[in-house]
Amino acid sequence: MHAEILATGDEILDGALVDSNSAYIAQTLEEHGIAVKRHITVGDDMAILVTALQEIGSRAQVALVTGGLGPTQDDLSREAAARAAGVELVVDERALAEIEGFFNQRGRTMTESNRKQAYIPQGATCLYNPMGTAPGFAITVGQCRFFFMPGVPPEMHCMLDEQIIPQIMALQGEKRGFHLKGVVSSFGLPESAVGERVAKVSDLFPEIKLGLRAKFPEIQVKLYLNTLDESLGREILAEASRWVADQLGDHVFSFKENTMAAETGALLKTHKATLAVAESCTGGLVAHWLTNTPGSSDYFLFSGVTYANETKINVLDVSPDTLNRVGAVDEETAKEMAQGVRRLAGATYGLATTGIAGPGGGSKEKPVGTVCIGLAGPQVCLTKRVTVGYGRRLMNKQIFAMNTLNLLRRHLLGILAP
Amino acid sequence: MHAEILATGDEILDGALVDSNSAYIAQTLEEHGIAVKRHITVGDDMAILVTALQEIGSRAQVALVTGGLGPTQDDLSREAAARAAGVELVVDERALAEIEGFFNQRGRTMTESNRKQAYIPQGATCLYNPMGTAPGFAITVGQCRFFFMPGVPPEMHCMLDEQIIPQIMALQGEKRGFHLKGVVSSFGLPESAVGERVAKVSDLFPEIKLGLRAKFPEIQVKLYLNTLDESLGREILAEASRWVADQLGDHVFSFKENTMAAETGALLKTHKATLAVAESCTGGLVAHWLTNTPGSSDYFLFSGVTYANETKINVLDVSPDTLNRVGAVDEETAKEMAQGVRRLAGATYGLATTGIAGPGGGSKEKPVGTVCIGLAGPQVCLTKRVTVGYGRRLMNKQIFAMNTLNLLRRHLLGILAP
Repeated sequence: MHAEILATGDEILDGALVDSNSAYIAQTLEEHGIAVKRHITVGDDMAILVTALQEIGSRAQVALVTGGLGPTQDDLSREAAARAAGVELVVDERALAEIEGFFNQRGRTMTESNRKQAYIPQGATCLYNPMGTAPGFAITVGQCRFFFMPGVPPEMHCMLDEQIIPQIMALQGEKRGFHLKGVVSSFGLPESAVGERVAKVSDLFPEIKLGLRAKFPEIQVKLYLNTLDESLGREILAEASRWVADQLGDHVFSFKENTMAAETGALLKTHKATLAVAESCTGGLVAHWLTNTPGSSDYFLFSGVTYANETKINVLDVSPDTLNRVGAVDEETAKEMAQGVRRLAGATYGLATTGIAGPGGGSKEKPVGTVCIGLAGPQVCLTKRVTVGYGRRLMNKQIFAMNTLNLLRRHLLGILAP
Repeated sequence: MHAEILATGDEILDGALVDSNSAYIAQTLEEHGIAVKRHITVGDDMAILVTALQEIGSRAQVALVTGGLGPTQDDLSREAAARAAGVELVVDERALAEIEGFFNQRGRTMTESNRKQAYIPQGATCLYNPMGTAPGFAITVGQCRFFFMPGVPPEMHCMLDEQIIPQIMALQGEKRGFHLKGVVSSFGLPESAVGERVAKVSDLFPEIKLGLRAKFPEIQVKLYLNTLDESLGREILAEASRWVADQLGDHVFSFKENTMAAETGALLKTHKATLAVAESCTGGLVAHWLTNTPGSSDYFLFSGVTYANETKINVLDVSPDTLNRVGAVDEETAKEMAQGVRRLAGATYGLATTGIAGPGGGSKEKPVGTVCIGLAGPQVCLTKRVTVGYGRRLMNKQIFAMNTLNLLRRHLLGILAP
């Protein structure tokens, strides 16, 4: 089945908005075994829109369109679809009632321009929108079934997952199959190295389709499998995931699409342990990541972002002598920070970061990209020094924070620190 | 001049990677007065690539292509361009020397597959790549001048800005014009409201092209102007920016494309003041944003991420009575946190956040999305309570952090707190 994706809207064409919808749709289709051949973006221009729809209608079997279903004059998708199909626009009574309901619930009155949103091309099937005022619709142009969706990402996701994917699977005339996915998340190898190490997975497991996704600073290996036998499929997927994990070794940190912070948090919870952090060069990022996980207050007690040496001394009780002797960026300082913050917050573990995120502040012995990490806990006191080669401040902070959480995660798993 | 953008690569077609390159190119072209009519994405497939190049060659005057210039077998852009133009690939000696130099400098040996990167279609003009091993090239297919660039964003940006834009401007045969841009950054109004308030700018200043960009949680209003008279252009742009700022009132926080944290930091520097932060619900995000600005150690001393009540008491010296009486999420608690952290770090200003980021933990009186902010400083002690309607934890943290920094920014500017 040949699929294409059409994104519409001047703000995407002009580059004012980065189009993340097309990637979401492509991934969803790929996961269901449907090959996407082309993405196209056009602006809010009736003639160009109609031409694009007719072109796609002559090439593809399925097309997914986003945008242009709003209430304003710029929203041309309904009219363009009707022209491309050679039909009139007609009101969909249920869509109209739902739009009216949307406004009534919020104590507002529906405007004429919102009424326009209930019109769809004659013969089209309405796709209702529980999250907003813009219904979508499905219509055939040429040899292709088109699905028109709103451009607002959460509304689009909901309509795609719940209404459109089942319709496409039905079109494919496929027996009710299962679309399984496995994700192995890794940190510390570049994308090209991950790709080389796992490339053979498709030879060893021919049923499996491989996908790599770089979500800096992690690289996800995705394994997709379409099968009629769910339990056999899950076995193959588990075996392939184990094979991938073996190739990546210590770089693997999650099989559940969790972040490094969520994995570390879950381990703290299992160990009924609590954590306090002292951050210099990461500047609050470790705490920000930890607190992005709902329920993190169960184990995360405190982070002291001690940018100034005075606060390292006053708040964390780092020795002024140590700072004078070895400087702020040193494993000994990191150790004292970790011990100090652990004591201060009464936590099971203390973690500390001190380093040079750049762009300034580096030296020959301690170049930009150097971080010293400390871990203090019951029967453990570890430090680690890492130097990374990224020139950009935010990227360095992210790499530093990943290394810091990873040290604790590996300790909690009983893996010796490298 | 009709321009199109072609992104190539299976990882973009599959949705494994979101294509931000096309938006960057479109914005850059728009800023230079060149209208983009279409974006296309295709995968690493020779037949489809050649067809796409020929189609574009029959429609556009200029086309910008990214990706497919690497050393691997999947990198097909060189060969596809040669086939579409009906010519052979030939080695570009300067490109070969530069690739060899790239490896020599790093003490590595150039491989055969890297040598392949020095081949470009006969008659094409090489675009050299000071940042990597993949040279680009320019070639005419049909009626269209194609510019092929690497997909790695920094390499692409550099090649586009420094080599390709001047060549396109020369093609246009335009007199040497100036392409001016003004940016007004706002916070607190939804994109649609910003759009309505500033829509008339193009009526009042017909020379100006308007663009809106949502970088959650801020909305940027971009004003573009192409002119032959630079000083007149700058005057018009300044007047239009003032008009836009008047329409948006207190929601404007930057005319320099700065973040809220950078604007606040610059004001602290001007006032020779220092800052300490106490964060509960923002969980380190205020500190993370502040420390993303290089040189922030000049004014940012400390943030205490006090997630647990015990650390609010022990570290920040918040009164246990207050916590018992009004709870953690209250303006009185926020005030004591701000005062406590200011004292602890010896800072000019103390800022504090306490609230409910969700998804759990809300109540009828204090729903999810509620934040209490405290500001303590010389002759100032302010608090503010805000409730926002976002359901997602990370979005709430971002809105909370923006409101927090904005309170200090407005105080430093002498604007009374709202």
